[in-house]
Amino acid sequence: MRLATVSHSASPDGSATTTAAVQVGDDWFALPAADLSELLRRADWRDIASATITAADATGGPSPLSEPRFETVVPSPAKVICCGHNYTGHILEMGRELPEYPTLFGKYADTLCGPTATISIAAAPDAVDWEAELTVVIGTEIHAVSEAEALDAIAGYTVSNDVSMRDWQKRTLQWLQGKAFNATTPIGPVLVTTDEIDPVAGLRIQCSVNGETVQDGNTADLVFSCAALVSYVSQFTTLRPGDVILTGTPAGVGSGMKPPRYLSAGDVLETSIEGIGSLRNVITA
Amino acid sequence: MRLATVSHSASPDGSATTTAAVQVGDDWFALPAADLSELLRRADWRDIASATITAADATGGPSPLSEPRFETVVPSPAKVICCGHNYTGHILEMGRELPEYPTLFGKYADTLCGPTATISIAAAPDAVDWEAELTVVIGTEIHAVSEAEALDAIAGYTVSNDVSMRDWQKRTLQWLQGKAFNATTPIGPVLVTTDEIDPVAGLRIQCSVNGETVQDGNTADLVFSCAALVSYVSQFTTLRPGDVILTGTPAGVGSGMKPPRYLSAGDVLETSIEGIGSLRNVITA
Repeated sequence: MRLATVSHSASPDGSATTTAAVQVGDDWFALPAADLSELLRRADWRDIASATITAADATGGPSPLSEPRFETVVPSPAKVICCGHNYTGHILEMGRELPEYPTLFGKYADTLCGPTATISIAAAPDAVDWEAELTVVIGTEIHAVSEAEALDAIAGYTVSNDVSMRDWQKRTLQWLQGKAFNATTPIGPVLVTTDEIDPVAGLRIQCSVNGETVQDGNTADLVFSCAALVSYVSQFTTLRPGDVILTGTPAGVGSGMKPPRYLSAGDVLETSIEGIGSLRNVITA
Repeated sequence: MRLATVSHSASPDGSATTTAAVQVGDDWFALPAADLSELLRRADWRDIASATITAADATGGPSPLSEPRFETVVPSPAKVICCGHNYTGHILEMGRELPEYPTLFGKYADTLCGPTATISIAAAPDAVDWEAELTVVIGTEIHAVSEAEALDAIAGYTVSNDVSMRDWQKRTLQWLQGKAFNATTPIGPVLVTTDEIDPVAGLRIQCSVNGETVQDGNTADLVFSCAALVSYVSQFTTLRPGDVILTGTPAGVGSGMKPPRYLSAGDVLETSIEGIGSLRNVITA
């Protein structure tokens, strides 16, 4: 199934309301939660969504949402964990060796923004780079689990762009400060559950700037699979429904170009993964 | 004032209850919040605590808590940010130069534990090190503020020990995985507000293992002051009441010794800062 957090004009006064939603055919139907983070915290979230799909298909069922607009797909994760150096091609372009362990760092819920949000780079405009990333959303609480258990605990996959302020990232040995500017990591537009797509089998992942393709990879090229990453992280800390893991970016980042190329105000950044969907974000100063 | 999260036996059946509390003389009095994280989210937390101090001093005021036990002082921060390389002595012992920018990385609320909790190292027992740290707790929401505004936004100071699994920390370039094992960073026992102590003027900070002093520093030796760190972090992300910043550790960590010395099951780890108090944690396998 395909789930999302959407805003729509439900009130008589036209003010926007946000809700978790599930797709049926071309339409989106409301689920009983304000957003997907809230929905995933319910142990029976799969049953709730399935019941809504069944009801939507029946005569006299609920009405689809009017003009739904995709918002930050999971707005309030307690943990946003990112993996660097995870595509063979990107590792080689950065001049590194294939890793024995995943390189992990953090972001925050505040770092996330919606799939069509503008991204302000006013606070650090000089070296803003793109990183298209397949992103895992957790569906079940886990701690110290195997890869098989980890795979069962994944709610599904979404798209994000780990927009990075390279100047701040390289100020010190630790990357956090260049990776955690408020509202700079778009995520969405939808969550696709694990029964529908398989990143290990291979999903094309692309990034373009102003229509020019800059990254064009495939998730089959991941060094550490989604299940491997989730299992690895769970060895040191608990993961809970709605937590997010960005799995790394393929070759083609701006800082790897000669000369380096960065984003500036007015640029249109598009990020897409086969079988999930696309982000489209305009950069502003 | 001195604030804490304490458990006590209030119920007739003797089961423990947790509450935010304020110290008056030698006694602790309950505040109307389940813990200090919850209290700090109220804009009027200072007024609430002051009113309780006044009431406790009056005839017929509330009764002090019976046998309060100190728990994780702020149990649910959305952000736990740590600074590395921040004491002149520790920077030199690690063979580094004095930094231009603070080195920042993350932990999670799940990483924290109470001031007298046992610390299990079963998941990564081979290279467990200590790092006594002065810790800032935020009292007001801020974003992109000056050092003066940052100082005003600090609720107060507490003690923590950034217990680090050096083998996991050094597996990759990014330290997160060695710094975020569940329930390994003791924090507390109390929060002392900024009107009572001044780290810039200098507070002695010490760590001992089985009674032997291994770290003995002074917060006057901090390269980046608490206000400077809070201001710096606020340039890239919003800080909110209850968020925590660990400000770095002085010289004397085990991995800096020749040969390196690490913690093992049965060791007693004590961490103290002048004017705040002490943590006492037993290591278990």
